[in-house]
Amino acid sequence: MNVNGLHYRTIWVHPHDSSIIQIIDQTRLPFQFIIQDLINIENVEEAICGMQVRGAGLIGATAAFGMYLAALSVSKRSFKDELYQIGEKLKTTRPTAVNLKWAVDQQLKIINKSTSKEDCFNNTFVNAIKIADEDASMCRKIGEHGLKLIQQQSERKKGDTVHILTHCNAGWLAFVDYGSATSPIYQAYDAGIKVHVWVDETRPRNQGARLTSWELLQHGVPHTVIPDNTGGHLMQHGLVDLVITGADRVTRYGDAANKIGTYLKALAAKDNNIPFYVALPSSTFDLTISDGIREIPIEQRDGREVKYMSGLVEEEEREVLIFPKESQVANYGFDVTPARLITGLITEKGICQANENSIHHLFELNE
Amino acid sequence: MNVNGLHYRTIWVHPHDSSIIQIIDQTRLPFQFIIQDLINIENVEEAICGMQVRGAGLIGATAAFGMYLAALSVSKRSFKDELYQIGEKLKTTRPTAVNLKWAVDQQLKIINKSTSKEDCFNNTFVNAIKIADEDASMCRKIGEHGLKLIQQQSERKKGDTVHILTHCNAGWLAFVDYGSATSPIYQAYDAGIKVHVWVDETRPRNQGARLTSWELLQHGVPHTVIPDNTGGHLMQHGLVDLVITGADRVTRYGDAANKIGTYLKALAAKDNNIPFYVALPSSTFDLTISDGIREIPIEQRDGREVKYMSGLVEEEEREVLIFPKESQVANYGFDVTPARLITGLITEKGICQANENSIHHLFELNE
Repeated sequence: MNVNGLHYRTIWVHPHDSSIIQIIDQTRLPFQFIIQDLINIENVEEAICGMQVRGAGLIGATAAFGMYLAALSVSKRSFKDELYQIGEKLKTTRPTAVNLKWAVDQQLKIINKSTSKEDCFNNTFVNAIKIADEDASMCRKIGEHGLKLIQQQSERKKGDTVHILTHCNAGWLAFVDYGSATSPIYQAYDAGIKVHVWVDETRPRNQGARLTSWELLQHGVPHTVIPDNTGGHLMQHGLVDLVITGADRVTRYGDAANKIGTYLKALAAKDNNIPFYVALPSSTFDLTISDGIREIPIEQRDGREVKYMSGLVEEEEREVLIFPKESQVANYGFDVTPARLITGLITEKGICQANENSIHHLFELNE
Repeated sequence: MNVNGLHYRTIWVHPHDSSIIQIIDQTRLPFQFIIQDLINIENVEEAICGMQVRGAGLIGATAAFGMYLAALSVSKRSFKDELYQIGEKLKTTRPTAVNLKWAVDQQLKIINKSTSKEDCFNNTFVNAIKIADEDASMCRKIGEHGLKLIQQQSERKKGDTVHILTHCNAGWLAFVDYGSATSPIYQAYDAGIKVHVWVDETRPRNQGARLTSWELLQHGVPHTVIPDNTGGHLMQHGLVDLVITGADRVTRYGDAANKIGTYLKALAAKDNNIPFYVALPSSTFDLTISDGIREIPIEQRDGREVKYMSGLVEEEEREVLIFPKESQVANYGFDVTPARLITGLITEKGICQANENSIHHLFELNE
């Protein structure tokens, strides 16, 4: 999407030197837009570990390019063995990221079939680009399906502004382009439909306030940042037409694990008859899980993320302690929204209801 | 309640000089505990305007002491006229604070009956102490009634820890002592019942993280600060036994206006069959209002409160900008929880259900 009027993806090959991969350093957003070069596998590991790149889709694509960069530097004789070891190590940089493992394995298959080191880095290069392109294309399709929902709201409102609430950052910064929850919004905006986005701040890491607002600002989409406490009030007063969030994992019956606080917004949407949609690539389904609330383990993160807040003071980013150091803190990363609160799931394969039959049918149709 | 092991109220007469009133400067909490002297009406106006004192009960008591301090300094001949003018001006320092107007009017009645300046400052002194004592006593009674609910939970759990979630600061800092929502908790703790409090951070002003956690810490009550997004997840997993919040205004049918985000927690409590109580002095009822959501006007506050966060950096309290300056912000102060989500109302007169009959009955019984 656009940054300062130019189109960007979150990862790309340097336009004049294909041995350099470029990313946006997301740890510096929203206050600084810094493009960073990745020239070797160490850079890639650091970028993934240090969260300069984040989000399932983008981590996968970065890992794929990482294997290509590694292929440039291994020895001619034992490139397969060396790359296998590099790949296994790369997988450990973010052990819970399913896409990371998937992308490395995709590249290892290609490497295994390669007949020479040169063949290998050509193949991994082409394949990394393919993985990135597919991620962008999948998000674009999610947007095309979701766009219809926004069009319907726009027609219902006779062309008046459609107000969409979103939580956290399921935006293009988490993928290669477009995003999941934001993709329908960008496509509606680009199609000239009047939209306005309520951006949940998304404590404790503030990905909504920091990243989603930055994305929307750069692309020109009207939006308003709100504390996470606000959505219910807005819905009670008819100020939200549609909710779209992302998901980290969706069960066979349609329960959706997503950033902590999503469940509260789903409850409010239900209480006020507002459609609540979850947008996700179909790879996010985990059909081995039945009961999302009982079976999906919820990560507890460092309490520092709650106790300290990062922001600008005199043009410099600093951390401030926001409450007594001695107070205990709990920091759960995700919650699970039960399927009964979800109006539908927007995937690259189409939109389905949050129930087993409808999810099954979606996969069957597209096989 | 206790601070550093000593018992404090939020306002008191200097122990060695009754012409000095002392308060805790709440703008400096939680990082600094500073006692401030009020020696004249200007100090009182500044304390109320500058939010060094806050909360309905405490603002009322401060205003009452303010009229006493004013009575010390007016002229003997025209003390009634001068105090009338001072009182009217004092009321404008926080125009929406009902208790402020009420307390000033109480003092003006006393002043009007006084026969001399000396008589007047004696009377206003005694009356200010009475107003403060009554506030503390009322909160103590709220606690006595609410204590039964915690006892029931403790019995149900066979003495295991009772986990109570609260939102914002309806604590002793907002009153003269005990608080409303916190009063049952302090009494349970003091009675040796095992309690643990989940403290909602309460963005954007963080009164939960800053004030409620400080209060509980000082009094020794086990507690954990959580982002506002977390309560739903905790309730889904059986980690909350009871919710108690305060209220700013409760309608004749039992709808409760309270700090923004309360409604979301009430929805989650309902969805998980967890009792949700609102604790309030009976003066908080506004029986002229029927439909809380339609009729209670919700204040929109300065967006700076959302965009900037205050905290300690190198032992100094600073404000940091936490997201792009250019993004729009909305900052609604309150939301309304419909009566259907409220299990009961805890008042100094007893506990009633959140419906017209039960509220009416409570007032009738106690007339």
